[in-house]
Amino acid sequence: MDDVVKELADALPAGVVVTDPAALEKYRHDWTHDSSVGTPRAAVRAESAEHVQETLRWATRHGIGVVPRGAGTSLSGGSMAVDGCVTLSLERMRAVEIDTAAKVAVVEPGALNVEVKKAAAAEDLWYPPDPSSFEICSIGGNIATNAGGLCCVKYGVTTDYVLGMDVVLADGTLVTLGGKRVKDVAGLSLLKLFVGSEGTLGIVTKAVLRLVPAQQPASTVIAIFPTVADAAAAVIEIGRTVRASMVELMDRASINAVEDFRPMGLDRDAGALLLVQSDAPGASREEEVAAIVAACELCGAKDVEATDDPAEGEMFVQARRVHFTALEPRGAVLPEDVGVPVPQLPALLAEIEAIAQRHQVEIPVVAHAGDGNTHPAIVYDAGDPESERRARLAFDDVMHAAIALGGTITGEHGVGRLKAGCLEDQIGPAAMALNRRVKAALDPDGILNPGSFV
Amino acid sequence: MDDVVKELADALPAGVVVTDPAALEKYRHDWTHDSSVGTPRAAVRAESAEHVQETLRWATRHGIGVVPRGAGTSLSGGSMAVDGCVTLSLERMRAVEIDTAAKVAVVEPGALNVEVKKAAAAEDLWYPPDPSSFEICSIGGNIATNAGGLCCVKYGVTTDYVLGMDVVLADGTLVTLGGKRVKDVAGLSLLKLFVGSEGTLGIVTKAVLRLVPAQQPASTVIAIFPTVADAAAAVIEIGRTVRASMVELMDRASINAVEDFRPMGLDRDAGALLLVQSDAPGASREEEVAAIVAACELCGAKDVEATDDPAEGEMFVQARRVHFTALEPRGAVLPEDVGVPVPQLPALLAEIEAIAQRHQVEIPVVAHAGDGNTHPAIVYDAGDPESERRARLAFDDVMHAAIALGGTITGEHGVGRLKAGCLEDQIGPAAMALNRRVKAALDPDGILNPGSFV
Repeated sequence: MDDVVKELADALPAGVVVTDPAALEKYRHDWTHDSSVGTPRAAVRAESAEHVQETLRWATRHGIGVVPRGAGTSLSGGSMAVDGCVTLSLERMRAVEIDTAAKVAVVEPGALNVEVKKAAAAEDLWYPPDPSSFEICSIGGNIATNAGGLCCVKYGVTTDYVLGMDVVLADGTLVTLGGKRVKDVAGLSLLKLFVGSEGTLGIVTKAVLRLVPAQQPASTVIAIFPTVADAAAAVIEIGRTVRASMVELMDRASINAVEDFRPMGLDRDAGALLLVQSDAPGASREEEVAAIVAACELCGAKDVEATDDPAEGEMFVQARRVHFTALEPRGAVLPEDVGVPVPQLPALLAEIEAIAQRHQVEIPVVAHAGDGNTHPAIVYDAGDPESERRARLAFDDVMHAAIALGGTITGEHGVGRLKAGCLEDQIGPAAMALNRRVKAALDPDGILNPGSFV
Repeated sequence: MDDVVKELADALPAGVVVTDPAALEKYRHDWTHDSSVGTPRAAVRAESAEHVQETLRWATRHGIGVVPRGAGTSLSGGSMAVDGCVTLSLERMRAVEIDTAAKVAVVEPGALNVEVKKAAAAEDLWYPPDPSSFEICSIGGNIATNAGGLCCVKYGVTTDYVLGMDVVLADGTLVTLGGKRVKDVAGLSLLKLFVGSEGTLGIVTKAVLRLVPAQQPASTVIAIFPTVADAAAAVIEIGRTVRASMVELMDRASINAVEDFRPMGLDRDAGALLLVQSDAPGASREEEVAAIVAACELCGAKDVEATDDPAEGEMFVQARRVHFTALEPRGAVLPEDVGVPVPQLPALLAEIEAIAQRHQVEIPVVAHAGDGNTHPAIVYDAGDPESERRARLAFDDVMHAAIALGGTITGEHGVGRLKAGCLEDQIGPAAMALNRRVKAALDPDGILNPGSFV
């Protein structure tokens, strides 16, 4: 432990700061598993906001970069370690408290999404945002990336549920923004600015999250389409009249990957599959399901099945959620997260198919189709540099295809380090300059999450 | 017209810049009608983003303050003219275009909220945010204040519907943020930062607004309570299980003011009235209405009536909306907009009653009760300085009562000029400093809406 790190370790309780290489290993990679990962000079496992403040004051004093880290499930390199930096882990700060009268959860950033959901459910309340990784990802990471998920098409994303936060700025100042009140327009919307800032502006040490009454068990429609274009057309048709609580798409490659991994009897010849849920209350459920079925049939579905059995529905949702895991045996994966306006979905999916052919890589696609947010997964052979080279070309091409269609390089994973080079291609030099101005105003020494997008 | 103004007038088409005192009169006051209003040196009636850019480049060059203005319906002095400044009116920029496939409206800032609603309705789509002034307020003003309204309790506020915008910065640079895509986390959430910034960071010249399928005609429940505390308890009870589409409260003074103005047979002896709507789809409506009625009865309502007739329901909503107009014959009004966490609603309402007695002023209250957002209206005699003095004391006391209860000085109207002095009391010095840092980064010369909250 060098003198500089020792100064921090001495200021914090024993065991908070670790520098042992074996212990540090855990804090290097996130789920990106990118080979450009560095090694931190230390990891700080904060147990309180005071520890975070102490760490940032120390980092500012010494000009040391700080990489914040929740559960380390970033798919865009958002919490990858950087050589010489300190990784600030929030994993030990995971208190969750429910205020039923105010319908809010007051949570620490290390709490897992699933832990907040469970605590809310115990009071017949619901915290909607549900990234596919909800069982293993932290609320702090969700806030950092403005995480989405499957129910967002009806219930919105993380930012829609953040009513308040404590955030520690680069210089160690703790600022409280918002609170338990639902509506508040006093001053600039700084709360919303910190959501999605990927640890580049400050570190959230507490959040007040809005809860809603418990969701009804949903009914599920599975529709098989000859082509992805037909499925995408059905997505638009459904959205015209129905507020479905889930509108997910799997293309042929994804269906086959899942069937290979865990056979469920999905139609391997389908061009695409739509998985649609309705949680409409009471007797209106039937009407909504009928409208979804009709929309699918109108758009050329060759097989449509509906079930009111939550267990059966959950089985299909599991098939969708397992997509990412199902790809593991096939090789390494570059996970994409591009989005387009919903009407551009067919064009984007066609473009992805062309890119897969052009670069001779497999690109199974799942999509939060109702929001136009797709997850093409570029599969490659990690041991074969040529395969990896082609995969990286495809990765860039997919992002530029989305941009060309008026879309985004990231709908919910964040820019992180993997996509930092492409951000300006999407938002343009003027918006990029504005990002830099806000960053410079809040973190003038640039110590927060260095090497990230701004 | 002085030489400096002439330089701008010459750069813009004829009729865009006006300096004639009679013509300027229209651009002095907003709905605040505050006596501290100034007189602008000129008004610019921009017809395009280019005119806005030209104006801001000129203002930066000469260090002249610019007060942006939509329909001039601010209740917090947000668009009050300032001596020596230029008022930049967006009233002529009011195009509205609906993209049905993407379910968005692309609008110019001067378009009225009602115009966007109507254009969406023509395509069976709906733009939810509905400030009480929706027939006369502009979308630009709605975005500037992150306006709310009656349906927010279920459908959220303006920021939840803004997917993209063009904004002109102080130096005249036009930046495009977001677009027609529903989910996008690329870069900092600058879009959300501009929403609610009250014209202090930039001027919105175009907005992309999210639309949803048309709302079903609602069923309405009217419940009469012996006390406001009972009514407030019912609000919490309703929120526990039901997602009502409207939860409005009127206290006795408000009921009587409305009855005096337009007799509707409301119970003048009621302590408070709740106006609750359900727009649950199809046959589930009945269940939701029954749950609302049961919650009201559980909390001591002495009379509860429900109707499925939209026309009858709308009559009650009109009674609620007319509140503000109904006060006109009673004197001048200082309109409040304080909010608290919903469980603090009874305490806030009791505190307001005590403040009314203490300062011997009438303070009828209506509230978007489901969100904890109240509109106490402090009535005073404009011709009597002593009455006005007491009203202003009450105005401050109401804000500090909300702050003491963990609330906000403004839930949806904005801080503007009227509440600028109280903002730091609510958010504290650290958050205030953060507001100033962001303001300085984006508007270093401080030309945008000078004298406003930051």
